[in-house]
Amino acid sequence: MSQLNDVAGRVEAVTPEEIPAEMASPTSTPLPTLKVALLGCGVVGSAVATMLVRNGDDLASRVGARLELIGIAVRRPERPRPDVPVDPSLFTADADTLVRSADVVIEVIGGIDPARELILTAMKHGASVVTANKALLAEDGPTLYAAAAENNVDLYYEAAVAGAIPIVRPMRESLVGDDVQRVLGIVNGTTNFVLDKMDSTGAGFAETVEQAQALGYAEADPTADVEGFDAAAKAAILASLAFHTRVSIDQVHREGITEVSAADIQAAREMDAVVKLLAICELVRDDSGAPSAVSVRVHPAMIARSHPLASVRDAYNAVFVEASAAGELMFYGKGAGGEPTSSAVLGDVVAVARHRLAGGHGPAESAYADLPVAAMGQATTRYHISLAVADRPGVLAQVASAFAEHGVSIETVRQRVLGEGDESRASLVIVTHHATDSALAATVDALTGLDTVDAVVSWMRVEGA
Amino acid sequence: MSQLNDVAGRVEAVTPEEIPAEMASPTSTPLPTLKVALLGCGVVGSAVATMLVRNGDDLASRVGARLELIGIAVRRPERPRPDVPVDPSLFTADADTLVRSADVVIEVIGGIDPARELILTAMKHGASVVTANKALLAEDGPTLYAAAAENNVDLYYEAAVAGAIPIVRPMRESLVGDDVQRVLGIVNGTTNFVLDKMDSTGAGFAETVEQAQALGYAEADPTADVEGFDAAAKAAILASLAFHTRVSIDQVHREGITEVSAADIQAAREMDAVVKLLAICELVRDDSGAPSAVSVRVHPAMIARSHPLASVRDAYNAVFVEASAAGELMFYGKGAGGEPTSSAVLGDVVAVARHRLAGGHGPAESAYADLPVAAMGQATTRYHISLAVADRPGVLAQVASAFAEHGVSIETVRQRVLGEGDESRASLVIVTHHATDSALAATVDALTGLDTVDAVVSWMRVEGA
Repeated sequence: MSQLNDVAGRVEAVTPEEIPAEMASPTSTPLPTLKVALLGCGVVGSAVATMLVRNGDDLASRVGARLELIGIAVRRPERPRPDVPVDPSLFTADADTLVRSADVVIEVIGGIDPARELILTAMKHGASVVTANKALLAEDGPTLYAAAAENNVDLYYEAAVAGAIPIVRPMRESLVGDDVQRVLGIVNGTTNFVLDKMDSTGAGFAETVEQAQALGYAEADPTADVEGFDAAAKAAILASLAFHTRVSIDQVHREGITEVSAADIQAAREMDAVVKLLAICELVRDDSGAPSAVSVRVHPAMIARSHPLASVRDAYNAVFVEASAAGELMFYGKGAGGEPTSSAVLGDVVAVARHRLAGGHGPAESAYADLPVAAMGQATTRYHISLAVADRPGVLAQVASAFAEHGVSIETVRQRVLGEGDESRASLVIVTHHATDSALAATVDALTGLDTVDAVVSWMRVEGA
Repeated sequence: MSQLNDVAGRVEAVTPEEIPAEMASPTSTPLPTLKVALLGCGVVGSAVATMLVRNGDDLASRVGARLELIGIAVRRPERPRPDVPVDPSLFTADADTLVRSADVVIEVIGGIDPARELILTAMKHGASVVTANKALLAEDGPTLYAAAAENNVDLYYEAAVAGAIPIVRPMRESLVGDDVQRVLGIVNGTTNFVLDKMDSTGAGFAETVEQAQALGYAEADPTADVEGFDAAAKAAILASLAFHTRVSIDQVHREGITEVSAADIQAAREMDAVVKLLAICELVRDDSGAPSAVSVRVHPAMIARSHPLASVRDAYNAVFVEASAAGELMFYGKGAGGEPTSSAVLGDVVAVARHRLAGGHGPAESAYADLPVAAMGQATTRYHISLAVADRPGVLAQVASAFAEHGVSIETVRQRVLGEGDESRASLVIVTHHATDSALAATVDALTGLDTVDAVVSWMRVEGA
């Protein structure tokens, strides 16, 4: 043993850049070797490759086996990649061949094709798969889960939701003995950065997005983020985990933040709240208290400044979970970026590698509850409505009647008179108790039709009460 | 299948109170059965028993097997326990016999003996063990980990640290591909409640503890909490997980909150900080950047109000983790109580039960890094020192020299004159840059000896910068 340790000591003294870990493995330890294939070498892929090589010895000690990087599939293998400390011959354009000879396949290409086919091929040939592909999981997860079960391999995807934050594993393992009632997630860093800056500067949406683009927090085409598509994919994955029910992205009600105005942010400030883009997953219960459906939606919402989610600043992510026994939990951290995402990827790689050695595998898809996804109109929450009205006796009574007729109960009203005399106007800010989205929509329609109401200036959902 | 489902439907329609789940299991599903033994039926144990029975069908679906509660070991089995919805014949005083016939043993007795012997007997007879016993793990964890490895069973203990908050699993699984640099934990709800109330009311320690006792947040004898013993046990467990190194409770430097005064809280307020009792686990690196030791300590510290830990109010817990790739993460939730703790216990029960079915087991102890535990004097942090001094020229220079002579660099000084004339005094508040604890102690000694210094009024560590 002492001789082996001496050899290991000498090998470790060589910098990782000079000798890739996988070349050092035959002499440095007597551990077995697992073959790892990496698909994609963008921001996340290159961070994963770097950590696999640099931390090779630690990873080997933690897994109980050397992780040998056998290839990195990229579109242009000949392109120089000086930042990735691996033998250039590892790059290949032939992903299909690569995945057939691996024990563990890491997929960080993203998108639906060719990622889906490569993952399915990998599993068919006996590899466990680690992926960060939220879009694919949210669109066609069940196909992948079924293939994992059929081939008796692991499919792990911690990096697909909220980057570095451990949330998939806590949801599918730590909380599996409990009943999750609600998940409120800030799962998109770009939109949180934009809304946070709008709150701190008072600026509007368009100029704040430009600032975010200049700082690298928003892409040149920010649609996937600001329209909520990215958050909707994550909401689908979180809801599936939380409620043991299949939810796909097309079942997620989605509204982005492009309509959020500086006035909305100001209105939130006035009620000591902030505006956040939330991914919301809720269990709907029938009159007996039994779960009857799930509500899954992404939209901007006001949330009280005293709520733990309100203090999530900049591009940070956080997922707030309410469970029957655990109560309130929150998971906070970086939701994107090469290194944070690769932290999550490598945690999964170690987990599935341990399973290869010890036998068995991690939890498979759990969809036994098989609850329907409720229509958005059935979702219940509170609402903030801002009205421009005439300032004369009876207006509030008329407005209050419109709410009452649609079964929407008012929690608070704040009236502010603007101007004087017969023509003076007033603003009414109303916050409701819980009501269904359809009841609120019908109320807004009715308010719009009242001759004393000049305009429904804005309305926004209020969450986290 | 449809007939089976019909039968299942009828059985499920009966309320759990009327038929314990384990009695219903033979007819309700064709699933296999795993035998679960519960040791202890106090606040946590009765919550665990209740959830096992009430959620029996869901747990069965999630595990893929019925969890049959075969017995509950208590000191007085004849005592009526109307709140625990199980057949009274399940209670037994013979824990030793009970653990020998179980597949999964849940230990929530607490303390060292007889918990240790029962866990070892259980594992020797092939049972996986789920425990909430922080004291035992922090005192003699390696004995238990070795027994788990030898008998090829699981030893899970999510509930031992920070109650309902998933932190053990994230540390030993999610972050296992990353390198943890630092853990700052608010892991004791009683002390957080006391310090938070002292901050919001301005009251002193003694009266706030009395208030906490009246509200049920502190025990009649609050020693284990306020002297930091509870937090020290959790720090030992967290450090072991974070740094792949064995750390026992007697290696943890421990200071409680009994010396924290209203003046200290006020001093923190003046620098926009709060005082928290922190469990701190840090990786110490040598000049080359390689890990050379671990620092593990529990003490009160000031932390900036802008730090995520500062907003942890009341009796909530939170664990803040800094990792090389993941960056900053925080896990927040309820750290104690029957239901929150039982959420963590049952998550572990499902995990180890799945392993019984699928083969394999979860991660074992990882202690390969085997780093030494640094003496407290080598710990480095920042410090807040409050001095009463004479108000005359040259005092600050003399004080500054005392810091410089011991290699402690000053970040800020705030001087306030008290009174007028030759006899007037001043207060000096100094915040240092990072320095070792021994250098700070030597500085304080030197300051005490200066004739211009009336007194070192107080000093406290400043963390989280």
